[in-house]
Amino acid sequence: MQAQTGADRAEANNVNTNPLDIYGAWIADVPDSWPDDARDWAHREFVDTLAVMVPGAAEPVAHKLFATLAPWGSGPCTVIGQPQMLAAPWAAMVNGTIAHVLDFDDNFDPPKAHPTTVLLPAIMAIAEQERLSGAACIDAYIVGLQILGRIGQGLNPAHRNRGWHATATVGVMGAAAAVARLMKLDAAACARALSIATSMSSGFMSQFGTEMKPVHAGLAAKGGIMAASMARAGITAGRDTLDGRTGMNRLMVGPDYEELRDTITHIEHGQNLRFEIDNVGDPLLITAHKFRVKRFPTCGAIHRAMDGVQHLMQTHGFGADAVASVDLHMPRVHFNNVFYTDPQTPLEAKFSAEYAVGCILARGDCTLADFTPERVMGADVRRLFPIIHRHPVDKLEGEFPTEVHITLTDGRRFTSVHEWPLGSKAAPFTWTQYWAKFDACCAGVITPQARDFLRAALEQFPTLADAGEVMRRAGQAFAPPAANG
Amino acid sequence: MQAQTGADRAEANNVNTNPLDIYGAWIADVPDSWPDDARDWAHREFVDTLAVMVPGAAEPVAHKLFATLAPWGSGPCTVIGQPQMLAAPWAAMVNGTIAHVLDFDDNFDPPKAHPTTVLLPAIMAIAEQERLSGAACIDAYIVGLQILGRIGQGLNPAHRNRGWHATATVGVMGAAAAVARLMKLDAAACARALSIATSMSSGFMSQFGTEMKPVHAGLAAKGGIMAASMARAGITAGRDTLDGRTGMNRLMVGPDYEELRDTITHIEHGQNLRFEIDNVGDPLLITAHKFRVKRFPTCGAIHRAMDGVQHLMQTHGFGADAVASVDLHMPRVHFNNVFYTDPQTPLEAKFSAEYAVGCILARGDCTLADFTPERVMGADVRRLFPIIHRHPVDKLEGEFPTEVHITLTDGRRFTSVHEWPLGSKAAPFTWTQYWAKFDACCAGVITPQARDFLRAALEQFPTLADAGEVMRRAGQAFAPPAANG
Repeated sequence: MQAQTGADRAEANNVNTNPLDIYGAWIADVPDSWPDDARDWAHREFVDTLAVMVPGAAEPVAHKLFATLAPWGSGPCTVIGQPQMLAAPWAAMVNGTIAHVLDFDDNFDPPKAHPTTVLLPAIMAIAEQERLSGAACIDAYIVGLQILGRIGQGLNPAHRNRGWHATATVGVMGAAAAVARLMKLDAAACARALSIATSMSSGFMSQFGTEMKPVHAGLAAKGGIMAASMARAGITAGRDTLDGRTGMNRLMVGPDYEELRDTITHIEHGQNLRFEIDNVGDPLLITAHKFRVKRFPTCGAIHRAMDGVQHLMQTHGFGADAVASVDLHMPRVHFNNVFYTDPQTPLEAKFSAEYAVGCILARGDCTLADFTPERVMGADVRRLFPIIHRHPVDKLEGEFPTEVHITLTDGRRFTSVHEWPLGSKAAPFTWTQYWAKFDACCAGVITPQARDFLRAALEQFPTLADAGEVMRRAGQAFAPPAANG
Repeated sequence: MQAQTGADRAEANNVNTNPLDIYGAWIADVPDSWPDDARDWAHREFVDTLAVMVPGAAEPVAHKLFATLAPWGSGPCTVIGQPQMLAAPWAAMVNGTIAHVLDFDDNFDPPKAHPTTVLLPAIMAIAEQERLSGAACIDAYIVGLQILGRIGQGLNPAHRNRGWHATATVGVMGAAAAVARLMKLDAAACARALSIATSMSSGFMSQFGTEMKPVHAGLAAKGGIMAASMARAGITAGRDTLDGRTGMNRLMVGPDYEELRDTITHIEHGQNLRFEIDNVGDPLLITAHKFRVKRFPTCGAIHRAMDGVQHLMQTHGFGADAVASVDLHMPRVHFNNVFYTDPQTPLEAKFSAEYAVGCILARGDCTLADFTPERVMGADVRRLFPIIHRHPVDKLEGEFPTEVHITLTDGRRFTSVHEWPLGSKAAPFTWTQYWAKFDACCAGVITPQARDFLRAALEQFPTLADAGEVMRRAGQAFAPPAANG
């Protein structure tokens, strides 16, 4: 009736081309002989994400969500910032939310998603529950990230561009893969875990700018734990839920999936609306694509422009008062992500091109301190909104780098062009920069002693026999000062 | 950029046309002065669903799912068939699954969904947790069903026909409404509950024929509880998640939503791809549309054909051996639901036109006993598959009633035409038929004493001060015989 499904093709060729089976087998069987570089990247993203979880745990949504979930089950898993430990799915849901709430966590381009905010909370909840090692967590992270990337490449960018929140929808698939790996499920059960996860895949971009945006990351982390646990219990699931007539690709890309796929003219980040089944693990996406680690606590779509403005100000030594206009030329999909032109709340400001760029102009930088209700309404930034102009370009980000054109009141004009933001593959953070961000995130939230105690465990994470130690230290960091002794 | 959203229109007209707001206000404020007929229908559907939960609780998926969820939190809520009580979301998830696993639960046409398998477990979990009355449960059911119907009418039939499982996707919206009503949330919180629920709305029809199909009902019941609880805690959510550029309608119907909506030529069950905002509660869908209560434990799409075959056999007195051919003329969407032509398991057989019709032909009826592995593989039925012929008609079910044409070996030909199956609005069950189904469902699963004890509470359900009594009795019915004293 429509194009062949994987199952149809398998029947025709007597070769299994079902991506659920192939990904399931890879999750179960791939050796954990990862290159050092891959392990190091995983380690760094654990540090980056734990860092942003510290201030995230103090956000209102963290407390609201914890209050909702806590009555539903205590357990062996730490919730950062809360005294009570919860059952694995609930702990993962709160921790995923707090990791994502500041929009300061890492991006990963192949799936067009924030990966670690979903993977880390799911992995750490299982690690605490089962007392697993740091090495096991890093292995599960690399596996989960690869599957997250491969499924994302099969759905995106059309899926994301249409308005699905890939961190949620594809994130749950990656979390299911990571947890299935930690649980050492066999190939068939890993495939079932992925299929089950499709039934917990949802989340629209119309939640951006509200507390539900970060909750999406939490729901994906929780869903991954649920899916793998249900698969372990033997619950059966469909074989065509990923690639099929009513599979994730047809329903969550669109009824025109085949047409979109067959007319692709430009491929970026490996996204081609096809599920890779011949070389699941090659290239290893974690080292081939690396991450976009955030310098600023705003939507990543605006980071190149913020880099550009800051670069021009530092190079040419002008301030906001000298600026007549700022012209931003960016792919339209980037502007679609930062759609608040007149933000009223800190969460909205994170998705405002005007606030992000105005903040750099007025204050020289953009830090966590700029996302209080008072600072967001600050006249120093808001008076600049009228001179910041949007010029959407109908090209993909791989086809058109962000251009910043600044005209000064004295007539001078400067231009800066950025294909990649600082903190991404073109200019990755050094370990020093990771720790500087860690320190900045902890400042004013936890004591210096608690910070150093947490850092010591994080530095040793890959060799910890009991990986839960980092979660427990992060949890204790929020205890009343007296208890920190 | 695309068609106006509700929020856009509101701004233009200074009238609030946002369906989230309008449904939220209706949930919060509509008086509970329901007509007796509406309350009676609700009561009957509680009986019908509790009935099918009794054998459902003995199914393998019930035990697998309970084993998965039980470690995550005991609580005040009964899980039918299990000794341990669980926290509300987990109890609702298991109970929703066992209500749906036999595919013997009621259908409701406006949303194209099974409503009670989602609403009842969510409502009863909260009722047990908060010790609410039967009257409060019936009120919440009527409210939840209305919202389920209205949202379903705004998305279907395109949403369902494309392959989304509306019981899951729209069901969670109805459950959120019902629970918000039980919790007496204010209008704004009810609107948030609906918006939050969109982030837990998923489920593909490619899970049909597997254990994940019934789990979808459980996930929807659980999601409704979570969404209302999160809204009560004050978690903020998007205002354009139902009707918006990246709302449920655009993303879960299709990017061609406007075109589909504007070219509708035939409306059935009120489904018109528009969210009703002027008359949310009028007509009251529960009395205007009633239910399709199942006579047979198979997919409802095949019930008209089964009625037709049974009717012709009873009228003309022939048996399977006298039949040369059975020709089924049905809307294509019905055949799409019963897509297993060679079912290998009881779950697959529920979605097989050949098994359903062959069972009636060979055995004169189709009951729960026909869905064991042995019976499903029975030669008496399977030898008839070659004489059962499918004739899909490219019309909607409201445009084309199911036709059964039977030709006997002696050359006689008979025809039967059914617009509605028995048990639906054209020929609703009498109370006697409801209780007969209840008795049949309990037979061999619980003792006659336990059955009578449960029935007594069910009969009194609308006047129970503590509605949880029915759940506790249903739970106790599975205790070892000695404990039933």
